[in-house]
Amino acid sequence: MAKHEPRRRAKFAADLFLELGAWGPQSMRIESALRDAIRSGRLGEGARLPSTRVLAAEIGVSRNSVVAAYSQLSAEGWIVGRRGGGTVVAVAPAQTLGEQAPPRPLRKAGVSFDFSPSEPNPGSFPRHEWLRALRRVLAQTPDASLGYGDPAGHADLRHELAVYLRRARGLAVAPENLVVTTGFSQGLSLLLRALAHNGVTKVAVEHPCVPGHRALIRRVGHELVLLDVDEHGARVAELAESGVGAVLLTPNRQHPLGVQLSPRRRASLLDWARTCGALVIENDYDGEFRYDGHRISPLQALDPSAVAYGGTIAKTLGAAARVGWLALPTSWMEPLITEKWYADLQTSVLEQLALTELLRSGAYDRHIRKMRGVHRQRRDLLLELLATKVPVLQPSGIAAGLSVVVEVCDIETEAAVLAAARDRGIALRGLSQGNYYERDAKAGIVIGYAAAPDHSYAAGVEALALVLAAAV
Amino acid sequence: MAKHEPRRRAKFAADLFLELGAWGPQSMRIESALRDAIRSGRLGEGARLPSTRVLAAEIGVSRNSVVAAYSQLSAEGWIVGRRGGGTVVAVAPAQTLGEQAPPRPLRKAGVSFDFSPSEPNPGSFPRHEWLRALRRVLAQTPDASLGYGDPAGHADLRHELAVYLRRARGLAVAPENLVVTTGFSQGLSLLLRALAHNGVTKVAVEHPCVPGHRALIRRVGHELVLLDVDEHGARVAELAESGVGAVLLTPNRQHPLGVQLSPRRRASLLDWARTCGALVIENDYDGEFRYDGHRISPLQALDPSAVAYGGTIAKTLGAAARVGWLALPTSWMEPLITEKWYADLQTSVLEQLALTELLRSGAYDRHIRKMRGVHRQRRDLLLELLATKVPVLQPSGIAAGLSVVVEVCDIETEAAVLAAARDRGIALRGLSQGNYYERDAKAGIVIGYAAAPDHSYAAGVEALALVLAAAV
Repeated sequence: MAKHEPRRRAKFAADLFLELGAWGPQSMRIESALRDAIRSGRLGEGARLPSTRVLAAEIGVSRNSVVAAYSQLSAEGWIVGRRGGGTVVAVAPAQTLGEQAPPRPLRKAGVSFDFSPSEPNPGSFPRHEWLRALRRVLAQTPDASLGYGDPAGHADLRHELAVYLRRARGLAVAPENLVVTTGFSQGLSLLLRALAHNGVTKVAVEHPCVPGHRALIRRVGHELVLLDVDEHGARVAELAESGVGAVLLTPNRQHPLGVQLSPRRRASLLDWARTCGALVIENDYDGEFRYDGHRISPLQALDPSAVAYGGTIAKTLGAAARVGWLALPTSWMEPLITEKWYADLQTSVLEQLALTELLRSGAYDRHIRKMRGVHRQRRDLLLELLATKVPVLQPSGIAAGLSVVVEVCDIETEAAVLAAARDRGIALRGLSQGNYYERDAKAGIVIGYAAAPDHSYAAGVEALALVLAAAV
Repeated sequence: MAKHEPRRRAKFAADLFLELGAWGPQSMRIESALRDAIRSGRLGEGARLPSTRVLAAEIGVSRNSVVAAYSQLSAEGWIVGRRGGGTVVAVAPAQTLGEQAPPRPLRKAGVSFDFSPSEPNPGSFPRHEWLRALRRVLAQTPDASLGYGDPAGHADLRHELAVYLRRARGLAVAPENLVVTTGFSQGLSLLLRALAHNGVTKVAVEHPCVPGHRALIRRVGHELVLLDVDEHGARVAELAESGVGAVLLTPNRQHPLGVQLSPRRRASLLDWARTCGALVIENDYDGEFRYDGHRISPLQALDPSAVAYGGTIAKTLGAAARVGWLALPTSWMEPLITEKWYADLQTSVLEQLALTELLRSGAYDRHIRKMRGVHRQRRDLLLELLATKVPVLQPSGIAAGLSVVVEVCDIETEAAVLAAARDRGIALRGLSQGNYYERDAKAGIVIGYAAAPDHSYAAGVEALALVLAAAV
């Protein structure tokens, strides 16, 4: 049948599925299949049918049967012969399911000024650099790398990531201790499953934290222990009696409160982990963005044998491409590679290699450096306007990250601020309404300064300051 | 500090992480941090240090402290001043972890001729079309689409996929019933978890089948029921007494045996599913590739309310990019979207939109059509040589897919064939040694004709025919 392929393509613009029933004369089965295709909208009005000869060859029936079917359908008005040859569908389908115009991408309805925390401005995704990296990847990568590969990640990316994480983030990591994921979320999901498969049933998490993390921990089946956070970070002393096998932390900048885990607590956390053989999960979700003071070492560097460190490009480049990583103690490598294999076999090789190229060329460093400047300027503008217009508020967590938090006196005030903001088209998150807490919620506003497009940021900060000044 | 950023970049080619200890005089803390960076290899031999002024500003210490630290390190021989200004690292790091040349991509060691089943030739990935699609996506996609979006998938892709699946695969599906995944594997993993969360504890699968699917079903915690396969496909009558809540099938072309599920069994399978409210999981892993006879309708089209249909680009374009889909009964949409969100938030938007572009432009159809021709030619060559050189073998499952299977008389013969093939550098899979069966394994050889590069395929088939002729 290979020889009919080119002709069939010439007639049929696209690949048509035509199913013949199993019973009845050939011509009726063809009629019926075509009628169904037209009725269901798979063959739309004006669609061109293959010639009787081509269709007969294609479905392996006699040409006479096709001629008979076409003539019956034509008599019924489904199809019509065109001047100059060719047969086209004459009627619009009765139901047009799937034929309507494609829905537009979701937007945040009614939001003029976006201060959602921890979301980077999607407008800052480095489109040009990503395309250039991918062009190079597609030009240079050998065929053998484009199939199924190591579920732990492509060797080139693991190498470049190890070099980068050692140099820029201070990690103590070799390529052999890295698993490539599609983002921090996948990494956490894989870790929680691997822990469950290795007998852990109880996991601690900071309180407050992103509600999705608590939900995920429970979803995987773990009992959840909440660690309160004070001005020195999470109260890690509470781990001693907790019986947990792992703890999820944001030690470098607690999310959402913005405090740093104190050196003393870091040491006692790692002591605890070593003593009980527990795993510390370090979420370095925006560690690249520190503006004041010197950067601090990740926990992982202090004890690579006790810490699983997770990072992602979602906050540095954007969430449109999906690459993340876990730096793991050696003993956790096999369990995590297994989980990754069960989850999705491998992360996109093309996106892995595009990131490799960005790391290798220095474009990744340059982008982060540029964005650090952008974020710092945005933060400075926000802090300046808050200090001027709402001096009563004390923003905290300002030295790093992509958001600040301001405490307000009570939950009613928080609700009033959020309601007023909503009326002005300002997206914000509340410490209480945002479900960062499960109990004894503090009242406060989390202001993310990275999400808004460049052109509306300054106006957004003005509008936000007005709302806050009126409500607190 | 923003004003120092450009100068710092000028001196420091890349972003360096430098951690100062908390105690002791400033100059000693800087010394110690730099010494550690050199010793650990983060600052390699010849790496240029920033000027004392820039480093002082960067880490917020007095310039005198940096000058003192540099002079001490210089005295110790760690760093050296260069003629014409600038200071560079003088010594190679003691340990060079992470500094070795990047390991090369994994290759199948010792394989000259690759006949692994169900793996497409990675050399046929449409590099040019993918890049062109992505260029267009990056030029045209609004910023708002490049952030976090609908975990079910981008609306444009769901629309184009629905149109394609209806037209080319005969599915009865609307965009609202599609969830975008990263491949069939992820889709199956999400389905099995959603089933478990909805009270299903027992899942059936064809026997034989890919061993990874059995492992995944058990991994998620389900009890496994094996459905034997005969010449009419899986023996679905055994489902009646099994108590399973779902069954995973390859009805259009049983993998690895290649038989089709008979019309009668299709009907009784769907009757059973409707009666018990069970879910049929249809793995249409290579349904695009049918060479002889007319294509048959997916099960999903017969009853969209009882079937979850999974597909992927891994077999049509290749596994280097990761996009797949599930067509689901409406009642399963929310559970699956939830699982997808927990698993990884979303599939890469860039890869989703690149596929959308390929579907829209017709390039996806053209690629499949081209590959269908390539596969058919490869299959024909294989069948011809087998018929000529080893007429005693009866290849089956030849009408579709990317592999054929030949039964051999016993497990010893299978082992002999595989051993002889290995000696000749031929990768093959055995029905028995490949763990397709859990019990009562048949002996046979599964020959995948899609995996090998074009240039070595013909020679590979010759070599394979010789091995088979000698061993059976």
